[in-house]
Amino acid sequence: MRIDIITIFPEMIEGFFNTSILKRAQNKGLAEIHLHNLRDWTLDKHRRVDDYPFGGSAGMVMQIEPIDRCISALKEEREYDDVIFLTPDGETLTQPLVNTLSLKNNLIMLCGHFKGIDYRIREHLITKEISIGDYVLTGGELAAAVLADSVVRIIPGVISDEQSALSDSFQDNLLAPPVYTRPAEYKGWKVPDILLSGHEAKIRDWELQQAFERTKQLRPDLLEK
Amino acid sequence: MRIDIITIFPEMIEGFFNTSILKRAQNKGLAEIHLHNLRDWTLDKHRRVDDYPFGGSAGMVMQIEPIDRCISALKEEREYDDVIFLTPDGETLTQPLVNTLSLKNNLIMLCGHFKGIDYRIREHLITKEISIGDYVLTGGELAAAVLADSVVRIIPGVISDEQSALSDSFQDNLLAPPVYTRPAEYKGWKVPDILLSGHEAKIRDWELQQAFERTKQLRPDLLEK
Repeated sequence: MRIDIITIFPEMIEGFFNTSILKRAQNKGLAEIHLHNLRDWTLDKHRRVDDYPFGGSAGMVMQIEPIDRCISALKEEREYDDVIFLTPDGETLTQPLVNTLSLKNNLIMLCGHFKGIDYRIREHLITKEISIGDYVLTGGELAAAVLADSVVRIIPGVISDEQSALSDSFQDNLLAPPVYTRPAEYKGWKVPDILLSGHEAKIRDWELQQAFERTKQLRPDLLEK
Repeated sequence: MRIDIITIFPEMIEGFFNTSILKRAQNKGLAEIHLHNLRDWTLDKHRRVDDYPFGGSAGMVMQIEPIDRCISALKEEREYDDVIFLTPDGETLTQPLVNTLSLKNNLIMLCGHFKGIDYRIREHLITKEISIGDYVLTGGELAAAVLADSVVRIIPGVISDEQSALSDSFQDNLLAPPVYTRPAEYKGWKVPDILLSGHEAKIRDWELQQAFERTKQLRPDLLEK
């Protein structure tokens, strides 16, 4: 999978893609992540990519021309499955959408900033709008990093222990059961006896029951899906 | 506001906090963000902070001791309003929760990794569990960055044009209206005439109507709140 991220602040998220599992996925050749500085695509001599909104409301708006030029140049190189704009009014990201996107070959992600992007970009250049949640961020960079992270981590081979990703929360509409590690007792706080019992079948039963109980208590909506 | 983030990968998100609005908020003295490397708090000579789970399931689990030592050291220095654990099974982050947290003075955010953290940490040391959405990430770092970003940006004075934050999506349960900037025509794609009319009152009416129409079409659930 190849992901091209268009942003005016590549330095905001490049550290993220050079660390941990995202770095490993790229080293293994399972994912390629390219950051593009939008300012490289403006014809403005001061490298400006924003301007005042028509109609006199507050804030600045990102212009269509540099974004169109950058996306067009990428599309000349290869076919893209989707050009995604990260925006709080997009489709809400959920694990099923993550699973679908992880099967794609080439994705462009556009990070907005300021008051927003010229709406014509959304009408004519964007094929999918995604929100990572019902809250507002200073820009789309973190949202793009969240989306790229969630999608790349489930590409087969990225996480060494594949079982580990399959038993995550949400993959089976159940929250994960509690986990414990050494020491068995810390400041008087003990690990449940069952986990120390060695009865593998009973332990699996307990985990499933705990996952179900926690889901019923914390997220009953997941059980109705 | 002071935010202390505990993580095993500070390099994953430190670039983010040194950029843009988060950087400006810190320079203005409106927010302090401190990253703590959890490995500095383990007594293990190999700086390990994880171990195998009791009960034999897959994945590694973060240990209680280094996390307890780090949180305790911070608490000796000052009082914290909340010790937040970022986890997909926590309370879902929404703008009202962001607004509430932005009034706090001192917050600790703990980033999990691997299969999870020893459940005793969640029972005894954590006061609030927050999820940024119904999907799984490689770790809590991006979630902590999302939470810090959403909270810090609405502290008065952080965004220069305060109006700009108040008219965001979600603050009034309406999605934002479309915005446009120069040029008025690009590749035959035109800005709506009303925005070029100069009739301020009519423009405000149009914006409100567009915000309402877009919300009704894309997120009718917001209108029922």
